[in-house]
Amino acid sequence: MLIGVFDSGVGGLTVLRALHRKMPGHDFLYVGDTARVPYGRKPREMVETFARGIASFLLEQGVDALVIACNTASSASLPQLADEVPVPVWGVIEPGVAAAGAVSRGGRVGIIGTVGTIRSGIYQRKLEALGLETWARACPMFVHLVEEGLAESAEAELLAHHYLDDRPELDALILGCTHYPVLRSVIQRVSGGGVHLVDSAEAISETVSVTLANCPPGSGRITHFVTGDSIAYEHTAHVIGGVDGAIVPLPVADLVALQKVAAAVSLSLRKELHS
Amino acid sequence: MLIGVFDSGVGGLTVLRALHRKMPGHDFLYVGDTARVPYGRKPREMVETFARGIASFLLEQGVDALVIACNTASSASLPQLADEVPVPVWGVIEPGVAAAGAVSRGGRVGIIGTVGTIRSGIYQRKLEALGLETWARACPMFVHLVEEGLAESAEAELLAHHYLDDRPELDALILGCTHYPVLRSVIQRVSGGGVHLVDSAEAISETVSVTLANCPPGSGRITHFVTGDSIAYEHTAHVIGGVDGAIVPLPVADLVALQKVAAAVSLSLRKELHS
Repeated sequence: MLIGVFDSGVGGLTVLRALHRKMPGHDFLYVGDTARVPYGRKPREMVETFARGIASFLLEQGVDALVIACNTASSASLPQLADEVPVPVWGVIEPGVAAAGAVSRGGRVGIIGTVGTIRSGIYQRKLEALGLETWARACPMFVHLVEEGLAESAEAELLAHHYLDDRPELDALILGCTHYPVLRSVIQRVSGGGVHLVDSAEAISETVSVTLANCPPGSGRITHFVTGDSIAYEHTAHVIGGVDGAIVPLPVADLVALQKVAAAVSLSLRKELHS
Repeated sequence: MLIGVFDSGVGGLTVLRALHRKMPGHDFLYVGDTARVPYGRKPREMVETFARGIASFLLEQGVDALVIACNTASSASLPQLADEVPVPVWGVIEPGVAAAGAVSRGGRVGIIGTVGTIRSGIYQRKLEALGLETWARACPMFVHLVEEGLAESAEAELLAHHYLDDRPELDALILGCTHYPVLRSVIQRVSGGGVHLVDSAEAISETVSVTLANCPPGSGRITHFVTGDSIAYEHTAHVIGGVDGAIVPLPVADLVALQKVAAAVSLSLRKELHS
């Protein structure tokens, strides 16, 4: 199988790594949209458009399945995108919700993520539909701690207390941004040992690998397409924990062209469905 | 005159605005290298290469003068770049140093900036050469506060205290990153009213406008070349205080090609000088 994985930048590499670990025989194409990172504070419609362009690109490359390794893009583009494309699509939200439901004994689940993810309310709605109580907090500075290589720093400690100290009692806390597993230590320390941290990367790789268990593997190759500078990508990817595979530049203009085609097709599809 | 101005992203817009305010009749080309932002934590050689590519691009467009509206790029590429190009080049550092020297009565000047700028030691050396005492602090999270639209926030307050509370007594504090003027209120509040904040954007626009006072103006047009996504640029530029002029996409691959030419030319120039 050729599996397409995409994220606004390097955060999704935590998901790619987890997927590759569970399914080492499959092939992966990863798109890191570093020319437009971060998605977290951008309007929902903008992020949805970006996701459509990247999905179109990956489909052109022949992927058999798509993984949206970005909470902001998942919350902005699902389930619409899944309706529009001819291959299975997974976002990071459903697996995270399921995993939190499974580990939360007292039924009190917290979610931290970008402004876009938290504002969308998607985690809250899905968790509440399972009968769970929720608490949500946008942590806009967390992603920058990770990309600056400040996961273990006084700044991380300060900001973790700022974002988490007024939480109610929780059984589980969803790390609702693919960058956050890099901050796991400080988040666990500040949340206290009794809170079970749910890592979307682990959760989605479990879901995907179970679903694709009987599919024929490929050659175990990983290719990274990067919209920003390749050297800068490699540098930041190293901060988040290394990167395997070839890095290929992907001009953002190509994605913009695909976005226009995707938007036109989706519009005509919707017209057809409504006529 | 056609004046080229460049920065890693939107921060240099504070400089562009100040220049345009003082010289409204001139034409400006601005390059915002948003595909590779931020420069502040990248290796010096990488940033120097980026600066060379952008300078080559602006020279190809026919600029009569160059302003490096980024402290990290100024510290990484000056004075080498000025030696290599056939037009006047200004960085933001010299004007900031001169302005601090002029306002500091007690001779105690602080500098805050990115990791790259502070680590280069360029401000410290230039200030100490004027007989001033210095204190320097890298504030890697400040740029993100600005780009997240969190200039007035609890996070800004927390981080300003974190970075500034252990400063010695200062007369002046150089805002050594073009993003920081957006944080002026919180920095002034935390530093105390007695500290004179030096804004590089004001300092450099003064220097450039005095030097070019007798040059023929143009048509007052501003054009923005953006390596990342244009819509995302406009969005972030709005956070920092709006943007005038047309926005034109500039593929990062074009700059990479120019960087290679510029590096080859510079190498052969150096060989010639040493032979």
